[in-house]
Amino acid sequence: MQVRQVVSSYSVVQSHNSKEAGIWVTYKDGIYDITDFMIGHPGGDKILLAAGSSVEPFWDLYAIHRSPEVYEILESLRIGNLHPEDKVARPAVNPNDPYKHDPARHPALKVNSAKPFNAEAPGSLLADNFITPNDLFFVRNHLPVPKVDPKKFRLQVGGKQFALEDLKQKFKQHSVIATVQCAGNRRSELSKLKAVNGLSWSHAAISNAEWTGVLLSDLLTSAGINGEDYKHCILQGLDTDGEGNPYEASIPMETASDPKKEAIVAFEMNGQELPLDHGFPLRVIVPGTVGARQVKWVKMISASQEESYSHWQRKDYMLFSPSTGHDTADYDKAVAIQEYPTQSAICEPRNGATIEGSEVTLRGYAWSGGGRGIMRVEVTPDGGKTWYEADMHGDEQQKRHQQWAWVLWEVAVPVPDGASDMSIACRAIDSSHNSQPEKLESVWNIRGLINNAWHHINLKVDNED
Amino acid sequence: MQVRQVVSSYSVVQSHNSKEAGIWVTYKDGIYDITDFMIGHPGGDKILLAAGSSVEPFWDLYAIHRSPEVYEILESLRIGNLHPEDKVARPAVNPNDPYKHDPARHPALKVNSAKPFNAEAPGSLLADNFITPNDLFFVRNHLPVPKVDPKKFRLQVGGKQFALEDLKQKFKQHSVIATVQCAGNRRSELSKLKAVNGLSWSHAAISNAEWTGVLLSDLLTSAGINGEDYKHCILQGLDTDGEGNPYEASIPMETASDPKKEAIVAFEMNGQELPLDHGFPLRVIVPGTVGARQVKWVKMISASQEESYSHWQRKDYMLFSPSTGHDTADYDKAVAIQEYPTQSAICEPRNGATIEGSEVTLRGYAWSGGGRGIMRVEVTPDGGKTWYEADMHGDEQQKRHQQWAWVLWEVAVPVPDGASDMSIACRAIDSSHNSQPEKLESVWNIRGLINNAWHHINLKVDNED
Repeated sequence: MQVRQVVSSYSVVQSHNSKEAGIWVTYKDGIYDITDFMIGHPGGDKILLAAGSSVEPFWDLYAIHRSPEVYEILESLRIGNLHPEDKVARPAVNPNDPYKHDPARHPALKVNSAKPFNAEAPGSLLADNFITPNDLFFVRNHLPVPKVDPKKFRLQVGGKQFALEDLKQKFKQHSVIATVQCAGNRRSELSKLKAVNGLSWSHAAISNAEWTGVLLSDLLTSAGINGEDYKHCILQGLDTDGEGNPYEASIPMETASDPKKEAIVAFEMNGQELPLDHGFPLRVIVPGTVGARQVKWVKMISASQEESYSHWQRKDYMLFSPSTGHDTADYDKAVAIQEYPTQSAICEPRNGATIEGSEVTLRGYAWSGGGRGIMRVEVTPDGGKTWYEADMHGDEQQKRHQQWAWVLWEVAVPVPDGASDMSIACRAIDSSHNSQPEKLESVWNIRGLINNAWHHINLKVDNED
Repeated sequence: MQVRQVVSSYSVVQSHNSKEAGIWVTYKDGIYDITDFMIGHPGGDKILLAAGSSVEPFWDLYAIHRSPEVYEILESLRIGNLHPEDKVARPAVNPNDPYKHDPARHPALKVNSAKPFNAEAPGSLLADNFITPNDLFFVRNHLPVPKVDPKKFRLQVGGKQFALEDLKQKFKQHSVIATVQCAGNRRSELSKLKAVNGLSWSHAAISNAEWTGVLLSDLLTSAGINGEDYKHCILQGLDTDGEGNPYEASIPMETASDPKKEAIVAFEMNGQELPLDHGFPLRVIVPGTVGARQVKWVKMISASQEESYSHWQRKDYMLFSPSTGHDTADYDKAVAIQEYPTQSAICEPRNGATIEGSEVTLRGYAWSGGGRGIMRVEVTPDGGKTWYEADMHGDEQQKRHQQWAWVLWEVAVPVPDGASDMSIACRAIDSSHNSQPEKLESVWNIRGLINNAWHHINLKVDNED
């Protein structure tokens, strides 16, 4: 194997991140020019996510790379080594920074806001895995990540306190595969129509994981709380704002106390200890419900006749009519969002991609809240005149009324002869036959919440032989 | 009081049913000319429903008429008497007619098919009553009304038999206010787009009643059937086709055996014995579920691992994509409709009505299946650019996840200056934020089922002072 013993700096590698400049990546101390290899890459142009940086975080996600054959191909592309003393400097930690306990994150995440950290996976990766890898699971933090000593940590439920070990050993453990979606998923499409308040999420503020913990209903019972006696279950996190006010939300007590709703206090995510960004040591998972109620770093659970009085419950996650403005929105009369409606999106190809050939294979996700499964996913290349039905796969074990996980779907659509571009939309129909509204105008609202209009992508067609 | 002692025949009265011919009605043996009275009638032109016939069936519905003042007004309009011997001839009963046990029906019902009897109320009456009067409740019969001797009747549940008195006395009675909707409600709008199979229902194949009976889950338990052991609950009626095959359907056992789903075997409708057309002596009510599974005249309830093999379960009530034709529809792969999606319609004014004044008050209903309540109803006079939010009223006692009843709504919309006509649409948003698709094209399907596109009416505006 021939390796040119060029020694280069990380900044030089970083500048090679486009077809024009050549595409370089690193693996350990090796530098590799993959410009010509890209065409044959089985994962397509997803390899570009590592352009100008290390492939290692991606190989952690796609373990198929960990084989002698792949290492051999990689070595054949080696053009040099990183300078031994070249390490990427990590910025010094400011001891007064409230975000100083935030963890390192995967470089593939598309950051919407650094502090608090909010990021989604590149949309094109999302439909690769039925279970989203922890590193790619979207992060929606409202406040800094709190630092927790798991040995001293106690969960307060009503008048009782539970140590982590108590929870894990004294209660029956329960696992549930559930999709979590940010209420702002797909907000960026709405802001193109007319400005809205909120982070500019694309369509990947949604992910799916297997969560393991204890049933919230068991905890409530153990604390002597009878669900019939209360209307709301208050959930408070350890994360606080500058003035010490914690994140808080509430869910209907009927949901919290019904074991069939499978709300859990989770300590594991996909078989691993809950990551810092996802609520270590404990987060509440309320399947089928909007992400904002699934409180991370939960420290206190209580029963109440009133909804949480937090900003996030009373003045934020509420859906108004397209004709309601900031001046006319009445948060006191509106209802806090809980269950999520039918949703779907196209993940591959990416919006704006160039395709060739006589058909294009589309892949994406579809999901509905409230335990409703997906009955059908359809794709139209002509604005709704013709629909192509997609093949779906998901978790076949989930029961009717408890279908908490998304389905991934795939369908091939013919490319019309001579077309130079295509506009494609998808929609899903859930098990109660609720579909998605056609137009963004129909769902636009001042907060840009719950955009579930048909999801569109535009493609260019390369007609050259 | 002056009464012209003209004696007239019923057929003469029948011919006076339009403004041109004059509008006559009868009450007992009196004949009344109400042509001039109509303008002042507080119920508006609904009085036209009785044109050329008796007002009595309508006064039964609207008891407000039973007052001395109203009788006095009526007598002032008397123009004569019915000929004493003039009785409307009832057609002779053919002893071989399988429909010979069908009951007499209210004359206001709009008949879609006489045998089997299928009829809806005039759409403009529907939003008058939160509880639909039994006489106006839509009727969807698949087969002739069976004749039942209530003393001999036995309900078979698994291996057990229950007499009617047993059911009423040995089980806890349960009442539930639930809306029932035919899967074909609003089909007529779809057939205008492209022909579909099925009865041509307008928007009144939906009604709301209080049902009283016993919980299906209690009955199953009493018969030793454990819901966890089976997938489906089979429901068979006493009504049969010419070859003796009974009407049959099934619902998921999870729905049947969960007391929170409130499926009941009902013997009362709005406090009265179940009417013949609504399943006397027993019908199954499965709140939030499509009408076809709520088997009337139920005689047999059983547990199964398979769905019912009836035509209606396997080859009929299934929803296909707009791009699926009769040649490509695969009933073996499709899923039988159970839960209903978000729905709404405008009941008043009637489509095509002429309005005057600077605003028009619209009234209608909204409902969603699966126990989801209605969050918001909106009306647009400009194709979705501007939305007016309606006031709603319903059953405030219903709990989240158990909101089985519709809401009635009302909203005033300004009439644009100088407009000669208006096209108005409504849509509802349910408690999981599922809305309604905009276009009929989006929901069209070969069977014309579950049309829940925005509901439109066109109005003429009378601009004359």
